[in-house]
Parts: sequence; C-alpha cells; structure tokens
Amino acid sequence: MQGMTQSGLGTPGASRTGSDHGLAGRIVHLAQLALRAQDLSSGIVPTLEALITDTAAVGSAYFHLEAQDLTFRVQAAAGELPDTPAMQAIATHGLPSGTPLLEALRLSPAPLFFADTAASGITAGFPELGVVSLAAAPVLSPTGELIGAFLMHTFTPHLWQPDEQTLFGSVSATLATLAGRLTAEQQAREAREAALRALGLALETRDRETQGHTDRVTALAERVARRLNWPEERLHTLRWGAYLHDIGKIAVPDSILLKRGTLDDAERLEMQEHVREGLRFALALSFLPPQALHVIRDHHERWDGRGYPHGTRGEAISEEGRVFALCDVYDALTSERPYKPAWTAGAALAELRAQTGRQFDPALVSVFVDLIESELADAPLDVA
Amino acid sequence: MQGMTQSGLGTPGASRTGSDHGLAGRIVHLAQLALRAQDLSSGIVPTLEALITDTAAVGSAYFHLEAQDLTFRVQAAAGELPDTPAMQAIATHGLPSGTPLLEALRLSPAPLFFADTAASGITAGFPELGVVSLAAAPVLSPTGELIGAFLMHTFTPHLWQPDEQTLFGSVSATLATLAGRLTAEQQAREAREAALRALGLALETRDRETQGHTDRVTALAERVARRLNWPEERLHTLRWGAYLHDIGKIAVPDSILLKRGTLDDAERLEMQEHVREGLRFALALSFLPPQALHVIRDHHERWDGRGYPHGTRGEAISEEGRVFALCDVYDALTSERPYKPAWTAGAALAELRAQTGRQFDPALVSVFVDLIESELADAPLDVA
Repeated sequence: MQGMTQSGLGTPGASRTGSDHGLAGRIVHLAQLALRAQDLSSGIVPTLEALITDTAAVGSAYFHLEAQDLTFRVQAAAGELPDTPAMQAIATHGLPSGTPLLEALRLSPAPLFFADTAASGITAGFPELGVVSLAAAPVLSPTGELIGAFLMHTFTPHLWQPDEQTLFGSVSATLATLAGRLTAEQQAREAREAALRALGLALETRDRETQGHTDRVTALAERVARRLNWPEERLHTLRWGAYLHDIGKIAVPDSILLKRGTLDDAERLEMQEHVREGLRFALALSFLPPQALHVIRDHHERWDGRGYPHGTRGEAISEEGRVFALCDVYDALTSERPYKPAWTAGAALAELRAQTGRQFDPALVSVFVDLIESELADAPLDVA
Repeated sequence: MQGMTQSGLGTPGASRTGSDHGLAGRIVHLAQLALRAQDLSSGIVPTLEALITDTAAVGSAYFHLEAQDLTFRVQAAAGELPDTPAMQAIATHGLPSGTPLLEALRLSPAPLFFADTAASGITAGFPELGVVSLAAAPVLSPTGELIGAFLMHTFTPHLWQPDEQTLFGSVSATLATLAGRLTAEQQAREAREAALRALGLALETRDRETQGHTDRVTALAERVARRLNWPEERLHTLRWGAYLHDIGKIAVPDSILLKRGTLDDAERLEMQEHVREGLRFALALSFLPPQALHVIRDHHERWDGRGYPHGTRGEAISEEGRVFALCDVYDALTSERPYKPAWTAGAALAELRAQTGRQFDPALVSVFVDLIESELADAPLDVA
C-alpha cells in the first residue's frame, strides 16, 4: 500500500498497512476501496463481501431510498439472502419507508445490533424472513435525512461481537460518506445539464429553427469526435459546446433573427454578434471547460482566416471549432431553410470538399466525408 | 453510540462501539465525525487533533490545492507547527505544486512515512523546517488528481508504528472521501448559481430594464422574508424565485417587450405569457424547489383573484408569491420607467396601502410598510 517509506532507517517491515494488520488494517483497506469508487455499487459490493468474510454474517445488503416512491430498494447484496416469498417481495418491491427498523434508524443514527430479531418490535417482519440476528446501519444525507441502510444478517442466533460491531460501524460510516459524495456529484451533473436545458429552451423559444439543428449537430459532432478517437471527456466537452454554439442568438433582435429574407450587410454584422454574446453567456456557466467555449468562439472561423469574429486561421483555430464548423455547415446545407431547400447528402459533401483548405481544415474534411459516406453506405434507405 | 441493541439477550456490554475499543474504535469515531461534517474544517480539525493524541506526532496540518495559483495552502492545523521563518513563509505562501513531497504523493497515492526527513530526497525542504519525522497522505479527487495532503510530524526522530500508520491511513482515506463530497457539493452549488446567472444575463441582454430591477427586488424580498422570520432555506428559495421571476420575458417578442408606449389588449395578453414561459424555463432547472417556482407562477396574482395567469385568490396564492408581488410592485413604482417618473417611497407605500385586500394580502402589506418605514427612518438621506 505504500511507495517509498521509512527506508532511511531500513525497516521495511514497519512500512506496511493493509489486510495483514488485523481489524484496523481491514478498515483502512475498505475505506480506500470506497475512496476510489466511481459509483455506489463499486464502493459497496466489496464492502458487503468483506462483511461476510470478516463477521459471522452470511448475507448483507444495501437498501437505497428511491425518491419517486419513498421506498428503500435493494441496490447491492452479497452472500445468502433469505430464500422465502417474503424476501422475494422485498427484492421486488423494496422496504416501505415506514418499516419499524427504518424508523428506528431514522430516530437513532447509529448502527443497531439485534441478536434475535424475534425479541424486538423494531425488527418486526424479519423473523418471518428467517433472519435471526441482524445488524443495521443508517446512511444519512449530509443534511441528516435517512437515504439508505446497510443490513447484515445470520439465519441462526448470533451475538454480534465488538470487532464485528466496529467493522460494521466503520464501513457504514465510510460508505455513507461515499454515498454523500456520489449524491452531490449527481446533483452537480444534474445542475449543469439543467442549466444547458434551460438556456436551450430559451433559445428555442426565440428561434424555432434551432431545436432540431442543435440536436442533430450535437449528435453529429459526437460521431466525428469518436471517429477521431477523442477520449470520452473531450467528447463530452465538445457536446456541451455544440449544444450551446448558437446560444448568443438569444441576444439577436427579432427583426434579424426571424427575418425570412436575406440579411443586408448591417443585419449580417449584427447577426454575427451572436458569437460574442454566446461566449458571454457561456462564460457565466463557470463549469464549462475552455474547450467548450472554443466551440462557441470558433464555429464561424474559417481555415483561410476569412471567418468571424476574429479571423483566426488554420491550426490557430481550436480543433473543436474546426470539427464543429464542418458539422454545423453540413447540417445547415442538408436542412430546409426559409430561403433554400434541403440539399442531398451528396451535394453537401461535394460542397465541403470544394471548401477544403478554404473554409475547412483539409484533414478534417476527409475524416468527415469518410464518416458520412460510411454512414450512408450502412443506411442507404435513410437518404434519398 | 447505539440506541436499542442486543437487549433481547440481555448483553448491554456487547452493544458498544467507540473510543473505549482501541484503535478500531477510534477509527470509527473519527469516520463518524467526518460523516456529519458540513465543511472540511469541521471534519478535519478533530481528526488532526486526534492524530496528535493518538500518535507520536506533535503537529498536523491539511494543505489544500488552490485552483487559482496551483499552490497547496494550509487549510487547517493542530498542535505544534515549526516556528521558523521558512514555516511562516509556507503558512503565508503555501507549498508550490512542484514540491518533491507533493510530486511523490501524486505518483504514489498511498500514505508515505519518513522516520528521518534528512534521509530522503522526497522530503527535501522539511529538515530546514525542523521537521524530523513526517507522515504524508494524499487527498485525491474522485478523478484521481491530487487536491490536498495531510501531514503530521515530529521534531525528533520517530519510527512510525503500524498502529500509527493504520490510523493515519484510515483517517486520511475517510477525509479524502469527505473532501470529495464537499467538493462535489460546492460544484453543485456553483452549477446552480451559474445556471441562474447565465439565464439572468440572457434576459438582461434582451431587456435592459431588468438588471437593476432584479437585483433590487431580490434583495428587498430577502429583507421582507427576514422580517417574517423565515428560515434560511426558505429565504434562499425565495431569492431564487425572485431572481428568475421575469425570466419568461426572454420569450416575449421585441415588438412588445421593448415597446415604449402603452401595450394594447392583445399585446398585454402576450406580455402576460411571460409567467407561463418563465415557469417552463424554470421547470428545466430541476434543482429549483417548488417554492421558487411558486414565486414565478404567482407574482402577478392578486389577493382579490383578479390577477393572472390563474386568477388565484387569497391564501390560495403561495405566501412566496404574495410577498414577492409586493416587492415587485413597490420597486416598479419607485423606479423610473419610459412611461412614468419614479414615485417617492411615501407615494408608493400609500398605493400599496390603498391596494390592501385588493391587490395585496393585508397582513403582508402591514409587514412590508413597517419594514420600508423603518428602513427610511434609519437612512433618511437616501430617499428624497
């Protein structure tokens, strides 16, 4: 578990912590597993298994509160669970929020240990399952609400020993902290998605044409990025940028945004302001990585430097921006607009090729054309 | 630490876990402290203190990476820290990200123990501080980046013992999980605030009049809510609703939103749609509590049922909406608009009183008037 340690004194034996070091070592080991877990199951399952190995428990499970119906459902389990119709009902329907044991955990947020479930009203229902001894620990949200419960059990009478109680108490505390972290991470993800959705809705309301375009072009950019073997995180960032690329159009006056005819020069300049405005809105979304902002900033730049708003040229344009510009133009060409019919895929690809080295990055044009052509070959009936 | 336990077998002695149960008990105790911590300091300080009590360390500290300048700064400390100019420099300026010890923690994410800091290049710099033996544990973000480090030290040579290593490893794993949770919570808060700011900016860009109004009316609603002794959380929700109350105006056409004259009947109806549109955008912000949505939904309802969009009456209107309506109208009256000068506070209060039981909740009018009058009395020079 350690890298370079007390080697200065030549005592390698002193530098170990881990499973060879009794109860405390096992606790550390489980805490570190939880620490690295990317989801509750991967943090919980090894712990549930360790409880069975290290205590008299023959089975263990984690019940998590489902917000929709306020029911605690089995999210992970290990070892032997009761094999009775009542247990199958619990596996299917969960434990109702009013179950006496859950009420007790809610009132007394410390692990509870029962040597004999028949001897306490708190464990009502468990004897019928065949569960004789039971340990239960609450998982509280950071604000103190009961959001889950760890249970471990035996099918024969068992008096839970101090070491078992310590191990159970420790791992449930650690996993509760993990659950708190994962819940907060989920909330952060949801808040970010919500921010994008609300802005997207606002734009859509002003510019009906946007909705289909945004969805299509975001999906297309993702496919190109996969073809380029971009890692998941970069791909995710590209999707955010793609989703927001036109968000600055919220700031464009109706007379220009909704004009059905061609824009005159002054109007076109004002329309072009959507790039700067979009960047301004997106900067307020402090969680956006710079590469997402680059999509917004660069999506109207051209390889030959004749784009806007900065006239950036060649590889000085972010790769995200260069990829996205292709997707954006391809979708615009193949879509019907008030002033033009939808082009065929073939005609649009020909136009992209014609713009190689002028509007678009030559290397990316060839990747893009390959992608679309292979998609067309796979689904020939989808395109006329 | 436990409530009702193995009483069925009459063995109260077996039902305890806690500090009387050796190393493992101390680990459980510290894990549970961390579990309930609402901020890193309140989770860390007791742990740092426990490390000093339970190990040979005379001092301990937690360094946290500051994103701005990529420097690790002391966020909490306990016991004796080195009393040298070099340590004062560290206390003031932090440890630079390239410090060899931090590099080592980055490469080897397990606790490191040094009996003699002079014997290893990894601990370069520490002998000069007077630190002779040192233990260091990394805090990793859930994605594996080094975001903090726990250190504990002695000023005399010390070979860290297995129990000390176990305790240190355990608490640093637990606190790393806590740090992960708190970081994620902070990110969730920031994402929510960012969502509101981005939407606010978008509205402001369309309707310049909005900015000052939103800020003033949000602050005013908060003062009224404090006067009503609302708890912090309710107040926070009210602020969200207040901040977003006019967000639906993003959807109102320029010809109506920006019209300088009086709106005709058809235009007024279209303007009134901003309530429904705002609710639609706000619903996309899935993190908003219902009470925040109520502010948006109800801010143009009237006590006598003659408001819009639902014509809800009396106490069927959310209290949030009734409070906010007063603030909204008061601010509109006391502000200059294209079609009217700013009213004096006195004239505006007289109008609110005149609308008691018609537009506004009588009980709230009297609270509101009291508030404004006491504010005016406190700052007579601010209002003409």
